[in-house]
Amino acid sequence: MDLWFTEEHTENVRFSIKVDKQICHLNSPYQRIDIFESPEFGRFLTLDGCIMVTENDEFMYHEMIVHVPMAVNPEIKNVLVIGAGDGGTVRELTRYDGIESIDMVEIDEEVVKVCKKYLPTIAGKLDDERVNIFYEDGLKFVRSKTNEYDLVIVDSTDPYGPGEGLFTKEFYGNCYKALKDDGILVNQHENPYYKIYSDTMIKTHKNIGSLFEIAKVYQFNLPTYPSGNWLFGFASKKYDPVLNLDADKWNSLDIKTRYYNTDIHKAAFALPNYVIDALDSSMRN
Amino acid sequence: MDLWFTEEHTENVRFSIKVDKQICHLNSPYQRIDIFESPEFGRFLTLDGCIMVTENDEFMYHEMIVHVPMAVNPEIKNVLVIGAGDGGTVRELTRYDGIESIDMVEIDEEVVKVCKKYLPTIAGKLDDERVNIFYEDGLKFVRSKTNEYDLVIVDSTDPYGPGEGLFTKEFYGNCYKALKDDGILVNQHENPYYKIYSDTMIKTHKNIGSLFEIAKVYQFNLPTYPSGNWLFGFASKKYDPVLNLDADKWNSLDIKTRYYNTDIHKAAFALPNYVIDALDSSMRN
Repeated sequence: MDLWFTEEHTENVRFSIKVDKQICHLNSPYQRIDIFESPEFGRFLTLDGCIMVTENDEFMYHEMIVHVPMAVNPEIKNVLVIGAGDGGTVRELTRYDGIESIDMVEIDEEVVKVCKKYLPTIAGKLDDERVNIFYEDGLKFVRSKTNEYDLVIVDSTDPYGPGEGLFTKEFYGNCYKALKDDGILVNQHENPYYKIYSDTMIKTHKNIGSLFEIAKVYQFNLPTYPSGNWLFGFASKKYDPVLNLDADKWNSLDIKTRYYNTDIHKAAFALPNYVIDALDSSMRN
Repeated sequence: MDLWFTEEHTENVRFSIKVDKQICHLNSPYQRIDIFESPEFGRFLTLDGCIMVTENDEFMYHEMIVHVPMAVNPEIKNVLVIGAGDGGTVRELTRYDGIESIDMVEIDEEVVKVCKKYLPTIAGKLDDERVNIFYEDGLKFVRSKTNEYDLVIVDSTDPYGPGEGLFTKEFYGNCYKALKDDGILVNQHENPYYKIYSDTMIKTHKNIGSLFEIAKVYQFNLPTYPSGNWLFGFASKKYDPVLNLDADKWNSLDIKTRYYNTDIHKAAFALPNYVIDALDSSMRN
């Protein structure tokens, strides 16, 4: 049998994965949720037909979203994670003994349920005693928070459907308020190559850059995401992500990683000229 | 009309591009050659059904294969390019006034002909007076060369079909001999993520590393190549690609680039742990 999952990266580009079987399918109040099993990437989760995580390459995404801020400030104790229902971001956070509390706000409880059931290597740390899961709209949750968190990670889906409000200036302003004076925001920034994504990158960088004292963008490879190249934003009231990296301290923690290392950390903030130009244009307009 | 070109990145992963029309198709003595026109990537060349270059993202590949060695030694005068029939590598080389001679060895004259005709923004500098094109097997050409070149660029296709011999130790040994004492070799190294490609990366790194005093690997993004992440090898008898980079000197040349800059140059040599581990394993076996 020949069974293929296909995602439209743009209306003119398609990415297809051979599938052994569909593991689950349901419609939550927010979106269509599917999990497939594939020979190339293991099991993978899609929301409304877009790949969110695959078992085989998720380490790249989750290591880069967590270890970059943690290596800049290894003293982080209180973390807010918005989105991230698959649990991969929380799993990487739980590797730090110094973290005392992880509030995770995921709008769709069904995503968490199916990931716990079918993707245990990704979601397996959602039961860690430091984790508090709130099934709410992250946009509303963060409004009531002031000076509470050392780190806010916005691990959102794309800016349409349930994730739409997570790309607005109002939301990032509330994240700023929710952070302590030395707080760090890491934000899912889309990809710089295809225009439909880079438009969001530009708007998001402008929104965050107008609020935070320091706002930088970093990149990494992700084979199953459009263009294979993905960006996160790093913003802070105080820390520069490269100048304030204490590589020796992070390396002394002896956390085994498959993608992240402190050289990749510094390197990730070097961007191609066409990306620099697009980000600069956002700050001029 | 709905017309799609599809390439198998692995037997379980497919990448498809919507096509407006097929511009040309022929069978040369060596391979099937096609050029298509697409809304997303402009025109693109395929050899035996594999994407070689697209008008819209080729700048990433050609800037990274040329400007990295040129920024390490801007005094380079005599260059040998093996493969690269589309002309993009030669185009970037001709931007250096200091280069006196470019020998290009391409086995398939038909590739050069169709690229000159249908991809002029890529092939347009093949008529530069410093360029000498030899329609020969690169493997044989380089055997007779000793101490002639400052830079050898192996811009090969994949290691099956006409490009097969360009991944052997004998070939790289002849490249070593063809280079002057301060010569640099840059080699197309495939991608590190999918096993069918990373097996070649590992074997190639072992072959080059056993011959050259310095052998490093660097990465960049390429949306239309498998996994979106691609590698080149940098090898030299004398120069370290990061320690010997003279960023001020390269920047003083004022060469406008869309991907390459001297920060990306340094950053490109930082590799993810899983790639470092694979390359290290090649040197132990």
